Amino acid sequence: MLSRKQLIEQIKQKKSFLCIGLDTDLNKIPAFLHTYPDPVLEFNRRIIDATHDLCVAYKPNAAFYESRGLQGWQSLIDTYQYLPKECLSIIDAKRGDIGNTSDQYARAFFDETAGGMGFDALTVAPYMGHDSLTPYLAYEGKWIIILALTSNDGSRDFQCLKTDNGLLYENVIQKANSLAGADRIMYVVGATQGQEFANIRKHAPDNFLLVPGVGAQGGSLAEVCRYGLTADCGLLVNASRSIAYASNGEDFAEAARAEALSLQQQMQVELEKAGIVRE
Amino acid sequence: MLSRKQLIEQIKQKKSFLCIGLDTDLNKIPAFLHTYPDPVLEFNRRIIDATHDLCVAYKPNAAFYESRGLQGWQSLIDTYQYLPKECLSIIDAKRGDIGNTSDQYARAFFDETAGGMGFDALTVAPYMGHDSLTPYLAYEGKWIIILALTSNDGSRDFQCLKTDNGLLYENVIQKANSLAGADRIMYVVGATQGQEFANIRKHAPDNFLLVPGVGAQGGSLAEVCRYGLTADCGLLVNASRSIAYASNGEDFAEAARAEALSLQQQMQVELEKAGIVRE
Repeated sequence: MLSRKQLIEQIKQKKSFLCIGLDTDLNKIPAFLHTYPDPVLEFNRRIIDATHDLCVAYKPNAAFYESRGLQGWQSLIDTYQYLPKECLSIIDAKRGDIGNTSDQYARAFFDETAGGMGFDALTVAPYMGHDSLTPYLAYEGKWIIILALTSNDGSRDFQCLKTDNGLLYENVIQKANSLAGADRIMYVVGATQGQEFANIRKHAPDNFLLVPGVGAQGGSLAEVCRYGLTADCGLLVNASRSIAYASNGEDFAEAARAEALSLQQQMQVELEKAGIVRE
Repeated sequence: MLSRKQLIEQIKQKKSFLCIGLDTDLNKIPAFLHTYPDPVLEFNRRIIDATHDLCVAYKPNAAFYESRGLQGWQSLIDTYQYLPKECLSIIDAKRGDIGNTSDQYARAFFDETAGGMGFDALTVAPYMGHDSLTPYLAYEGKWIIILALTSNDGSRDFQCLKTDNGLLYENVIQKANSLAGADRIMYVVGATQGQEFANIRKHAPDNFLLVPGVGAQGGSLAEVCRYGLTADCGLLVNASRSIAYASNGEDFAEAARAEALSLQQQMQVELEKAGIVRE
């Protein structure tokens, strides 16, 4: 469990708001790891060991584990167990279903006694409305991170549709903010959405934003910070492939660290500029 | 793999368009099953044995398996393996993510060699747009079933918002229909949405609709048929709790069969009225 206050402390201490995505694909990790009993877990452990002082959150994406069936689900549980407790643990699963089903997803990812995983936060899809979101909020201290404006091309299909009451994603934020405060709810906003961050901040002035799309998807950290930073930082910027696959050799963990360090240093500059940490 | 043609043949042969949801909750199944090595699998097997001649599809909801961790995932794989091949096998997982991640979900649920499951169809959430849907369509012969207008209260929050181009759910159907035909795409439309079915049919005249909400959620089969039936039937009406938990005793499978039979008989009347099967 990591409270908003603890998260902000981590950010100030590490001078970083980096989230590292663990989208670990068995076909993309260095070949020498295939001799380990669980190559994916071994990969994740080494990435975590090499980066945990530079980031404040880790985010495995469930799809990359589910695609390996039972073995993959075991890797996910073992990866969860290995995550450092001072970092926010996010399971990126984008779940969304009716109430009695969301209860089950909450058990799966929040209740360690049920399924072996007790993540701090779960990403959720808002299409089904408020009663698909509220069951998670019954888990005191846990976070939901709601898709608002995503980083992909398809984000333009529906999320930016004009409705009677503003853009669709604005409706999502408005509705979700009526369910719980900025200590329980974050939003996913893609780094590729640069200029929209100012608008997001009008609707979600205090919420942390989880920002994918810096790195492999081409978003700009400076632009995200310009429009998205708050007095409490308010950003978790995620990088997955650009860190995890920085090298395909035996030096992959060092290469991941170098990439994470480069991002941390850019973040430190932004935090200093904004007066959130001292120069 | 079950083609549209094969599905329609099944419907005519069984005089049924019933889909049985396998939302199997360890805490709700009869106590005597707890002596079996996998009580959930045993429950599912008996429900399937008791009902397979009365329904044309089975639909496990992934959440109820994920909530039991590794054991649950094993139950899901074993349940998939036990499903009769003549029935459409639907995994109700409501996934939705960017392209390279959707690829992984497709492997998880469509590619038996990857994770042990080769479902015919997967439910997906549309919020992230076209590129979150297309990766599944690369799997020839597999279906995606897209959330359009769901059965829960929260369906009114966003799905029915008026946009510049009609209601949000109309936009979803329009966009999805531009990606593939009625042989690959179905839509989820809640039985509780009665009068909206006529409008759905304007936008999706040929697509099969997967209709939850008859039974525990209170939707009316007659109303769904009145507005939703097509010349090819075009409906899969799902019941989960009302069948699976019809009795909590040793007779649960017989009770499930009785409930399924009652629904099948109502469906036969509708199919005969519509001239889809002969009286």
